Amino acid sequence: MFRNEMPRYEILSEEAMETLDKGWRRIVSELGVEFALPEAVDYFEKAGQRVEGAKVFLDPEFVLEQVAKAPSEFDLQARNADNTVHIGGDHMVFAGVYGPPFVRRGDQRGDAHMEDFENFVRLGQSFPEMDSAGGTVVEPEDRPLDSRHLDMVYALQTLSDKPYMGSVISAENARDTIEMGKILFGKGSDPSVRGLTPPLDGPVSISLINCNSPLRWDDRMLSAMLEYNRANQAVVTTPFLLMGAMSPVSIPATLVQQMAEALSGIALTQLVQPGCPVVFGSFLSNTDMQSGSPSFGTPESAVGLLCTGQIARRFNLPWRSGGGLTSSQTPDAQAAYEALMTMLPTFLAGANFVMHAAGWLEGGLVSSYEKYIVDIEILRMLKHEFRPLEVHEDSLAFGAHEEVGSGGHFLGAAHTLEHFRTCFYRPLLSSTENFDRWSKNGGADAAERAGRIAQETLDDYEQPPIDDAVRDQLRDYVARRRIELGDEPIPSPSF
Amino acid sequence: MFRNEMPRYEILSEEAMETLDKGWRRIVSELGVEFALPEAVDYFEKAGQRVEGAKVFLDPEFVLEQVAKAPSEFDLQARNADNTVHIGGDHMVFAGVYGPPFVRRGDQRGDAHMEDFENFVRLGQSFPEMDSAGGTVVEPEDRPLDSRHLDMVYALQTLSDKPYMGSVISAENARDTIEMGKILFGKGSDPSVRGLTPPLDGPVSISLINCNSPLRWDDRMLSAMLEYNRANQAVVTTPFLLMGAMSPVSIPATLVQQMAEALSGIALTQLVQPGCPVVFGSFLSNTDMQSGSPSFGTPESAVGLLCTGQIARRFNLPWRSGGGLTSSQTPDAQAAYEALMTMLPTFLAGANFVMHAAGWLEGGLVSSYEKYIVDIEILRMLKHEFRPLEVHEDSLAFGAHEEVGSGGHFLGAAHTLEHFRTCFYRPLLSSTENFDRWSKNGGADAAERAGRIAQETLDDYEQPPIDDAVRDQLRDYVARRRIELGDEPIPSPSF
Repeated sequence: MFRNEMPRYEILSEEAMETLDKGWRRIVSELGVEFALPEAVDYFEKAGQRVEGAKVFLDPEFVLEQVAKAPSEFDLQARNADNTVHIGGDHMVFAGVYGPPFVRRGDQRGDAHMEDFENFVRLGQSFPEMDSAGGTVVEPEDRPLDSRHLDMVYALQTLSDKPYMGSVISAENARDTIEMGKILFGKGSDPSVRGLTPPLDGPVSISLINCNSPLRWDDRMLSAMLEYNRANQAVVTTPFLLMGAMSPVSIPATLVQQMAEALSGIALTQLVQPGCPVVFGSFLSNTDMQSGSPSFGTPESAVGLLCTGQIARRFNLPWRSGGGLTSSQTPDAQAAYEALMTMLPTFLAGANFVMHAAGWLEGGLVSSYEKYIVDIEILRMLKHEFRPLEVHEDSLAFGAHEEVGSGGHFLGAAHTLEHFRTCFYRPLLSSTENFDRWSKNGGADAAERAGRIAQETLDDYEQPPIDDAVRDQLRDYVARRRIELGDEPIPSPSF
Repeated sequence: MFRNEMPRYEILSEEAMETLDKGWRRIVSELGVEFALPEAVDYFEKAGQRVEGAKVFLDPEFVLEQVAKAPSEFDLQARNADNTVHIGGDHMVFAGVYGPPFVRRGDQRGDAHMEDFENFVRLGQSFPEMDSAGGTVVEPEDRPLDSRHLDMVYALQTLSDKPYMGSVISAENARDTIEMGKILFGKGSDPSVRGLTPPLDGPVSISLINCNSPLRWDDRMLSAMLEYNRANQAVVTTPFLLMGAMSPVSIPATLVQQMAEALSGIALTQLVQPGCPVVFGSFLSNTDMQSGSPSFGTPESAVGLLCTGQIARRFNLPWRSGGGLTSSQTPDAQAAYEALMTMLPTFLAGANFVMHAAGWLEGGLVSSYEKYIVDIEILRMLKHEFRPLEVHEDSLAFGAHEEVGSGGHFLGAAHTLEHFRTCFYRPLLSSTENFDRWSKNGGADAAERAGRIAQETLDDYEQPPIDDAVRDQLRDYVARRRIELGDEPIPSPSF
């Protein structure tokens, strides 16, 4: 797991922080935040906050008291203990793209299918750069809406032995995710006693709870969140901020809105279950005011990222942001510079949980096989770059200078021969071939080579072992629940 | 002109700096530095340094005394005073790619011609992101080697009214650059009195003096450098460090070598002409130890950049590094992430003079029209990003939140309507079009769109006005010198 021991790049002065601090306090207390789930409003009302219908007017000090109950770091367990990750501190955890209804492979773009879902889970499992395959790596449009979460969780649990993200469509779906987690972690021997199985020992799933920005938490996501909180499963409360649409066309205004939304959501989690694991989420970019389309990999989003890290640390919370975001329609130069324009600040700011770390294309509408590999290369480079530089007498290699002297070369120096295998970053995708060799080898650009690497990775994929009894219980659970949800039975997958 | 008022990202501890400091002192005093020009050696010997043949063993304190005479910042004049730039402090000056013998446009790659040279000067003139077209924007292979510098300087002086870089092939070429500078700046009314014209008031050219690393300064470049020093024209003394070939396979070892080389070169400039303008240069990347090829846009080179900035500031010197470097053969995803992997640290480190800021492809062998536009977009984004964020009461736009409330949108809010034209970065190249519109518009990727923008820019190019008499003098000078150098006369260019 990657620890970022390099300095954080912080750009907000103490004075700016104080101005922002006043801003969110004013929003939550004067404008209030809407919680579209009566149960959530009840929690606040019982705790003495002023309520008008679905709107809760929050005392900022009360919010901070609740927020202080949230853990500043926690472990997220994987079924393979070697893959358990730590969320918080200087740790950075990377998960794949989340949510696209479409998939792109080469020049083909179309609806995403369950087969694609499985493939992106396999890619997430295969690359050590990824700590989690993610959650909804694509929306499998060939499966019925009300039961596809079962297929997704099953694939995440069985094709990968890394941590996974849960379903957030409804309380019902969250309960399914939790029950399947219990089965996977040996707590759910009898699927017929759903809800009565012993609790999980800690978080085995992490789930994305988006705010319906501005200043509104929706009922379905909230009801899912409450289930996760009660089961001590991690959630990421995330303001969804495309400046110009969901927030004002000002970064400071958006930052205070983000604080108001994230902190109010986090306060609720701690009312439901004090000490339950929660991550300060941020999804902050801007609208292209010429086209009206969302715009990703922008300078504004990079600045927002740097500020968000500084803000989340102030509240002593682990935080989520960043990724390889882009508006580009293909895995071209734009896709690459926009992805890195987001991912490099992600490292500079030390984000703890990074969704969309690989595969994101076309504003998040598309999961791209080629872009996945481009992003893996970017991640590999940055993980190499963000290691403290060791400077000591030995590292100066004075002997090499003595050996080579003036005007010579170091290719055959003893120091070089000793270190050449490990001294530098070795690319996965990038080519340094000279033009003649590159041309003779077919003259493939990075996107074409990336497509090949993705396919080779899928060809070489090996499913991590899983206990047959556990797999059978999961299959039974999925089959039974699918029928309960009113969908036609289908054969269990072969994996 | 761009000032980088954001914080510098510094990664070397004081202890690490001290270790590096000891390192370069040991190299210059124990191993010595070779100066392959007897005149240069004489300067050091007369100043009391120990000399063995071409090798000079330097007292580190003596080096620092000389270095302290160099200005920490200076103006580089342009013939259009509005384009004069400041080198040093928090200023960042951007110049185009330098040196490629080949050119690439679309799928065509071939020898660079004078026409390409002129085109890349026109591009440098056209984009406000560029402070200088550069110098050898390509090597015009269709012109004779010994007089092509005249054609290049003439094109730089007349097609652009921004500062330019001089020829460094020989003392003779440097003298031509200086004389043509005098003509351009109204000092050289009579071309027959070459060398006797009044001196320039300050730097009107900046020239790249590379070290033949390791630890060797070559005679031709040194002789050019001495001419520039005596004429108070700026030079960039640049260790040329591809780790594994020209320096050890260790970043700290390379940093101390870089200090030894750059500082010894700078010391010489100040012996020749105390107070003459000089820039601490850095060109630091690594060899791909698998292919043996140079590798650009690497993590190592990014780390080297961050360290070099910190080191140069310690010596109170303006410094040069960075650019949009890549090993990629085409303007693809690799070209883009590698370029930004160098350019973003260039901003984080606050490089004062940035060569290769646009157009670099294929390890510097190729000037690419499309890559030029990709790099311009990257520069525009970073210049937007590296502006201090203004956080004050007004920027919180509380009124917009009051207006929109919970669950609404900001597209029509008064605050949005007031600011939408200028609130966000507006791309030149990047597309946010949705898939249908993008497809209907031809589905061009970033490289194809970049090619179109390059051509449109050239089509729209307007030559900046120049005094007819000055132009005639420059033409006469070029024509006369071409014959003196033994080449056939050719008609003066139409511009």
